[in-house]
Amino acid sequence: MSDDATFLRAAIDLSRRRMEAGFGGPFGAVVVRDGKIVAEGFNQVTSANDPTAHAEISAIRAACAALKTFSLAGCTLYTSCEPCPMCLGAIYWARLDRVVYANTRAEAAAIGFDDDHIYCEFDKPIEARTIPFTHLPSEEGRAAFAAWQAKPDKVPY
Amino acid sequence: MSDDATFLRAAIDLSRRRMEAGFGGPFGAVVVRDGKIVAEGFNQVTSANDPTAHAEISAIRAACAALKTFSLAGCTLYTSCEPCPMCLGAIYWARLDRVVYANTRAEAAAIGFDDDHIYCEFDKPIEARTIPFTHLPSEEGRAAFAAWQAKPDKVPY
Repeated sequence: MSDDATFLRAAIDLSRRRMEAGFGGPFGAVVVRDGKIVAEGFNQVTSANDPTAHAEISAIRAACAALKTFSLAGCTLYTSCEPCPMCLGAIYWARLDRVVYANTRAEAAAIGFDDDHIYCEFDKPIEARTIPFTHLPSEEGRAAFAAWQAKPDKVPY
Repeated sequence: MSDDATFLRAAIDLSRRRMEAGFGGPFGAVVVRDGKIVAEGFNQVTSANDPTAHAEISAIRAACAALKTFSLAGCTLYTSCEPCPMCLGAIYWARLDRVVYANTRAEAAAIGFDDDHIYCEFDKPIEARTIPFTHLPSEEGRAAFAAWQAKPDKVPY
């Protein structure tokens, strides 16, 4: 079995075991660097009362904690299912090198996890979204951005 | 000043104070229910070594912890800047009623926070993304999904 299949199987095993133990939906993920698993994550939305506690977000946070960095460049994420939009965004912010997944978003929708309608929201103009967004431009808001630009000791990311 | 302007100002104040204190980028958010702030969040990506620690994600997690729920239905999120794709996804998963924001994603891009290129990735077919995605369908993966469907005591969300 290839390394990809081995690590993906670890993510899938986790998805099933943690789901059966009652932590949340059937989703698991592992982060791999240099051929070794450095962190794992699994869905714990309902057990942790945290809607952001998807497998991928949890694995990314755990990997960053383990490696003491906010960048996972050089790492691959193996996830039991195609990431939702939230996790896809996190994957870009974490700068992962690569993602390997098993189940698709269509398969997730078929068991009641409808990420697809969230993906559709991204294609809408902001004023057409199902959650109303109100834009209130603010001088103080712009001033905070200007202060960031002028900050001499900022840590860019 | 309207309630919206007052709560948005609280988010902006937070964005500036925490940024000046060195926690991370100039982003702040508060979650409001029944006219009261129930939680706040601010960017701490670089100080917490957590690429998911955006203001909105942090505020959503804190609000869910404070209210002991994984649903923020009935709540409004005030954020100093238009949410990035990760946070937009989290807003849908958290089922917030409404979002009010000050600075735009274009203004964020102008000070070096380029969410816009991540938004563009969402419109691409998965095989055309800048981060390579590999799909490895798996019988075990599908079996985990089937097990979820058959699970008698699952907590849907």
